[in-house]
Amino acid sequence: MEEPETGATAPARDQGGAAAALLIIDMINNFDFEGGEELRARAEAIAGPILQLRDAFDAADLPTVYVNDNFGEWHSEKSRLIEQAFDGAPDRLAKLKPRDCDYFVLKPQFSGFYATNLPVLLPKLGARRLVLTGVATDICVLFTAGDAHMRDYALWVPEDAVATQDDDRGRWALEIIAQSMGADIAATHARSPDEWLAEAEHA
Amino acid sequence: MEEPETGATAPARDQGGAAAALLIIDMINNFDFEGGEELRARAEAIAGPILQLRDAFDAADLPTVYVNDNFGEWHSEKSRLIEQAFDGAPDRLAKLKPRDCDYFVLKPQFSGFYATNLPVLLPKLGARRLVLTGVATDICVLFTAGDAHMRDYALWVPEDAVATQDDDRGRWALEIIAQSMGADIAATHARSPDEWLAEAEHA
Amino acid sequence: MEEPETGATAPARDQGGAAAALLIIDMINNFDFEGGEELRARAEAIAGPILQLRDAFDAADLPTVYVNDNFGEWHSEKSRLIEQAFDGAPDRLAKLKPRDCDYFVLKPQFSGFYATNLPVLLPKLGARRLVLTGVATDICVLFTAGDAHMRDYALWVPEDAVATQDDDRGRWALEIIAQSMGADIAATHARSPDEWLAEAEHA
Amino acid sequence: MEEPETGATAPARDQGGAAAALLIIDMINNFDFEGGEELRARAEAIAGPILQLRDAFDAADLPTVYVNDNFGEWHSEKSRLIEQAFDGAPDRLAKLKPRDCDYFVLKPQFSGFYATNLPVLLPKLGARRLVLTGVATDICVLFTAGDAHMRDYALWVPEDAVATQDDDRGRWALEIIAQSMGADIAATHARSPDEWLAEAEHA
Repeated sequence: MEEPETGATAPARDQGGAAAALLIIDMINNFDFEGGEELRARAEAIAGPILQLRDAFDAADLPTVYVNDNFGEWHSEKSRLIEQAFDGAPDRLAKLKPRDCDYFVLKPQFSGFYATNLPVLLPKLGARRLVLTGVATDICVLFTAGDAHMRDYALWVPEDAVATQDDDRGRWALEIIAQSMGADIAATHARSPDEWLAEAEHA
Repeated sequence: MEEPETGATAPARDQGGAAAALLIIDMINNFDFEGGEELRARAEAIAGPILQLRDAFDAADLPTVYVNDNFGEWHSEKSRLIEQAFDGAPDRLAKLKPRDCDYFVLKPQFSGFYATNLPVLLPKLGARRLVLTGVATDICVLFTAGDAHMRDYALWVPEDAVATQDDDRGRWALEIIAQSMGADIAATHARSPDEWLAEAEHA
Repeated sequence: MEEPETGATAPARDQGGAAAALLIIDMINNFDFEGGEELRARAEAIAGPILQLRDAFDAADLPTVYVNDNFGEWHSEKSRLIEQAFDGAPDRLAKLKPRDCDYFVLKPQFSGFYATNLPVLLPKLGARRLVLTGVATDICVLFTAGDAHMRDYALWVPEDAVATQDDDRGRWALEIIAQSMGADIAATHARSPDEWLAEAEHA
Repeated sequence: MEEPETGATAPARDQGGAAAALLIIDMINNFDFEGGEELRARAEAIAGPILQLRDAFDAADLPTVYVNDNFGEWHSEKSRLIEQAFDGAPDRLAKLKPRDCDYFVLKPQFSGFYATNLPVLLPKLGARRLVLTGVATDICVLFTAGDAHMRDYALWVPEDAVATQDDDRGRWALEIIAQSMGADIAATHARSPDEWLAEAEHA
């Protein structure tokens, strides 16, 4: 379709020129599956670092993209997914709820690039560097990282902003990400986001 | 992510076994672009045949999938798209509003298969035959048809259920679809949907 | 795999910095199918303009990429495809044989982008503008053009460098390409390749 | 293009009906990169199990598909890749050279499914179950497995038929493959290929 000229506000329109984008993977989640409670506890532990990154991206006027499982539901209704994820008691993850200014991409499988809008959105944003955060390190983060690397994105996967149920498996997934993709896996406290963003802007 | 066990109803869950699926392309549309008013008039003219097909698919317990442009908006919020499309005066297209029981796939480009959930959804549904309807015949319908054909889907593109601004170009697009993809382009009144569905079930 | 350091010469190695690439589609062909003889005659008629474009790309040190059907053969052996295409009598198409300095991409379906190496090769080459040539205008050229447009490539599809069996259908395919993709379809004699290349380099 | 009717022999033509396919990943390799010598030694150690699997697939009339890196070379000439891989002294890997009856798919990145013919070939073959073998477990095998799983292929990745430079990383890659994809990772000696094939045929 030709594009209509709407008066819609961002992120209703794609916008170029972003050197980097922050991806938040599968954090909109009711953890209603086997082993889900353990994963929820770990997800809560990384919510702080992710939020700090999101703040830093906001401050640098760089986009945040939620890349979230549709959990086998095909209605493409973000609000319904969010409602299902946060329908219970007060939740330490609620501060990570997507805002109207965030991009939101539904993924039906492990990788954020497979059968999703992401391969069109990221070029529209102009992003060539990605920070990957969320769960689970050895599944959706790992395969999103692999697909990103195959498409020549430079990656930072901060070890304190990703989590999985099994610590050892998570560590090895990070090791694979670092070794085979040349990704940075430094923790958020080990380097300033501003530093990395500055680097990203000049890369 | 592992799949949660929700109590959600269809189409919240994918479901196998469908011999065919009905695709409705870009009919959720405010036609707010150059030449949009002409296209709206033609879209209104095909709303009837599309609705009859949707009824037939309902009756046969076969899925309807809306495959709709996101118009450059990346919020993945179906309800917002629908609201924008129908925010004006009473609309002859309103009867085609997606229902809760319909699947809804956002596409950022011409083809319903490019950078969308469709390549995962259709195998989940088990659909091997597709009826393509909507606008515009020579753009989004044509390139969705091409991608469907390359993936071995059998196609019916009823000539009275697709439209574009330029009649000649529309006719030639249908000619290409028929000639190079072996697609059926018979009008909906020229053959009974039940007939085609019966054929689809035994193909 | 990590990349070996070979001493191989181009195009054994990918090379960046090309503003444009010339794609030659399905001209390596024995035309051994229904209607093939008619298509061969038309293919011979466009061999001259294609060769001139290839010379111009050579002169400008820009890459030529053969994007060719594998005709249902999966051995990935370029030389075998070429041998089969030219195994008969002297052939006016033989001057278009790929040279060692040309890239060669096998495609199993209509589009040069579907299930091929092209989505990786073109970014490696740095090409953002494409000249599409070859056969058939309303099938493989059309759907390659559509996929290229969806990926934001700027296109020139010279009307005298593409052909199909049915003149009318070819003309309408070009009309669709021009209208919906903003592609240039000027004949090679109507504009200097150097001109377009200069434009391409500054775009 | 329409398909010519050639007299070519298999695998020149795709053929349906195979319940399973054997994939041999990146074993056509001159190991001419950092750490290559260590990987070669490990690749030699898995050549035996891979060859036994290939024999078993031959006996069951099931296809073997080489999925091999193009090492940044874009000539699509299988014979040239093979020559480069085996141009040195006698090689314990030479027995794994692809034969004319094998399929051969070039991949430009980690995954055998990304920007390759594989997504078209496997459906043509009718294969729904895959045995993955070759190198490296934590790179190309891992990401090919991930992509296969996302496309609903059932997987067997025999632990004695895959290898990488770092034993621990290889073990964890297999752990991830087993845990997140439900893949079988039993060694070839721990279960009979015939057994698995029989199972595959009835799955």
